[in-house]
Amino acid sequence: MSLKISNEEITNRQAVFMKKIKEKQVDEAILFSEADIFYLTGFKFIATERPISLIFDAKGKTTLFVPLLEKEYAKLNAKVNTVATYPEYPGIKHPMEYLKEIIENISPRKSTFGVDSNGYNSPYGYRGPNFLEIINDKKIINIFGLVEEMRFVKSEQEIELIKVSCKWGAYAHTLLQKYSKVGLRELEVATKATSEATLSMANTLGSDYIPHGSPASAEFRGQIGEMSAFPHVTTQNKKLKKGDNLVTWGAADVWGYKSELERTMFIEEASDVQEKYYKHMYNAQEIAFDKIKPGIKASEVEKEVQKYFNENGLSENIKHHTGHNMGLLNHEAPFFDLGDHTIIEEGMVFSVEPGIYVEGLGAFRNSDTIVVTDKGMEMITYYPRDFESLII
Amino acid sequence: MSLKISNEEITNRQAVFMKKIKEKQVDEAILFSEADIFYLTGFKFIATERPISLIFDAKGKTTLFVPLLEKEYAKLNAKVNTVATYPEYPGIKHPMEYLKEIIENISPRKSTFGVDSNGYNSPYGYRGPNFLEIINDKKIINIFGLVEEMRFVKSEQEIELIKVSCKWGAYAHTLLQKYSKVGLRELEVATKATSEATLSMANTLGSDYIPHGSPASAEFRGQIGEMSAFPHVTTQNKKLKKGDNLVTWGAADVWGYKSELERTMFIEEASDVQEKYYKHMYNAQEIAFDKIKPGIKASEVEKEVQKYFNENGLSENIKHHTGHNMGLLNHEAPFFDLGDHTIIEEGMVFSVEPGIYVEGLGAFRNSDTIVVTDKGMEMITYYPRDFESLII
Repeated sequence: MSLKISNEEITNRQAVFMKKIKEKQVDEAILFSEADIFYLTGFKFIATERPISLIFDAKGKTTLFVPLLEKEYAKLNAKVNTVATYPEYPGIKHPMEYLKEIIENISPRKSTFGVDSNGYNSPYGYRGPNFLEIINDKKIINIFGLVEEMRFVKSEQEIELIKVSCKWGAYAHTLLQKYSKVGLRELEVATKATSEATLSMANTLGSDYIPHGSPASAEFRGQIGEMSAFPHVTTQNKKLKKGDNLVTWGAADVWGYKSELERTMFIEEASDVQEKYYKHMYNAQEIAFDKIKPGIKASEVEKEVQKYFNENGLSENIKHHTGHNMGLLNHEAPFFDLGDHTIIEEGMVFSVEPGIYVEGLGAFRNSDTIVVTDKGMEMITYYPRDFESLII
Repeated sequence: MSLKISNEEITNRQAVFMKKIKEKQVDEAILFSEADIFYLTGFKFIATERPISLIFDAKGKTTLFVPLLEKEYAKLNAKVNTVATYPEYPGIKHPMEYLKEIIENISPRKSTFGVDSNGYNSPYGYRGPNFLEIINDKKIINIFGLVEEMRFVKSEQEIELIKVSCKWGAYAHTLLQKYSKVGLRELEVATKATSEATLSMANTLGSDYIPHGSPASAEFRGQIGEMSAFPHVTTQNKKLKKGDNLVTWGAADVWGYKSELERTMFIEEASDVQEKYYKHMYNAQEIAFDKIKPGIKASEVEKEVQKYFNENGLSENIKHHTGHNMGLLNHEAPFFDLGDHTIIEEGMVFSVEPGIYVEGLGAFRNSDTIVVTDKGMEMITYYPRDFESLII
């Protein structure tokens, strides 16, 4: 099995993209989105102050516009027709001046141009003109979200990579559970589990394994004891105490593809109250699993989950929706959310993670990664979910 | 020594911000930039599909606008007057509808409003209106870059945190050098060094240590042997071979503050050719160190470095500028670049990393972090730079 997306599939993605823009009467197009450029070219780059973009001419010929420092690496890795460069940012001549010339060459006539944003944006010290300021005499069509929508449904190859991700995420998580002991610090346990899983992954998969992200890891991200009641707490490096609620995370990037595994665990013992909340969360997750299938709206899954929570007097303890799509990014649309009426399709990959948050006690949230099948869904994370297995 | 920025300093940053916007005749302002919001509030959050923003009213009172899931954590950590929430994204009512109401309450009259962008932008599946579409009857002033410019010059507290980062980055790097052996894979060596350094850091600094990022780490990022000739190669998981050029990275986040340490190393032996290029790179770095001082333009440093490379027939081997500012992000403006004429000021923190790239052989680049002092600069990374020490 290959641990990357084939060149053929990438070429096919470009063809689909061209078909979609033609349907919108767009002649040429430019993309600045990092994830979309990777998706359409197979070229993974480190985003910095230096602009990168991907240009399609009217015939679908592609030009990747990169700084000089990426030139040879892009030629080796990007499935594009041309790699065009500029010397540096900011440089004596601004990168957007070079881009302007490239676009004038590719598209000399009055044309309809698709753009995904106002131009290159970056928090890393970049300043430059809005893209609209550098091109003249064109009709502009906003194509933001078009590639993102192509990414909603995963191909067989993508699902395979996500399954490999799940497998190694589960292994890292097994080690996290094994090493979680009273008196140890958050970072000690997470580092031990992560390093052992990474070493195993690196040696098992060898040079075929290009993470384009982080190898297998497991951590708590600060979700220890009562701090776990804050869903997005960050690492606190606290010591584990008896009776603590823990919320965990196991993951692994495989050629940029992601998965998500989270478990609620309890150190040495769990109270009846902890068991009660755990079981409500478990039930809510089961409700989502039962509901998910192609052809219904994503919001319908969320409605069922919220109904359960409301009926059990838990609405005050709910802080977020039940799940999100994922792939090249940890969070992608669509969402299992009351306001997201996207129709679920076979091949979408979602997290299912209803959470219950109790101030002063902690969080109750498991997250599993699922792929939508023709009739329902398949859970592709495999890790015990029963209450007893999670008391450590 | 505290491992965080004091509340007093954060309050002071807000006062400086208000002074700066008043100078621009701006009454109220809103920021969507993640780094700027952290800088001005001390609130570190995980950016997702859910919009977050920071609003200043005309008197400097601050409102942090967050999703419900951040409410309690923001109240605990953000130095703001008010935490305002919306239930979820996309939600039944879009978050921007809630934001619109908040702004109408804060700023009911015709006023001049400063905004740092077109609104919330996110690759994580967010869709929403441009900010300008949700507010009426105001004069809009673009304040993009204003907080970024406040961040150019670091305070004493910031420099202390960056120095702690340097110290632990150097320790991780020492371990990387120690564990680099012929026949080992990239990820094996990096993981061993990273985990040992992280464990040491976690246990030494204990619960006072909030990384707001990654603890001590060291890695190659694919820069092994001839692959290192691609400046932004990503992890390849290759085995180390005798005579390989290695380019490394040691770092540690301390309450979000970063530093950068890179070395060119050679496995077991180095050829005369490798020595020649190493020494040119060393000389170029020395030239930059000698030149850096307050009051000159950043571009003047780059000019001297480029002059040396040109005089030595190396201009074809140069792929990027000599360095960048850093702090809360790995790359920040200003840059040691021919096109960056920002005046260097005392307290700026830069990487100094001229690089030489030789196809088929590899890269020659050291990176050190320096802080600009009243008369010149201080190198705050400490790690051997002499050629002999780097043959391992």
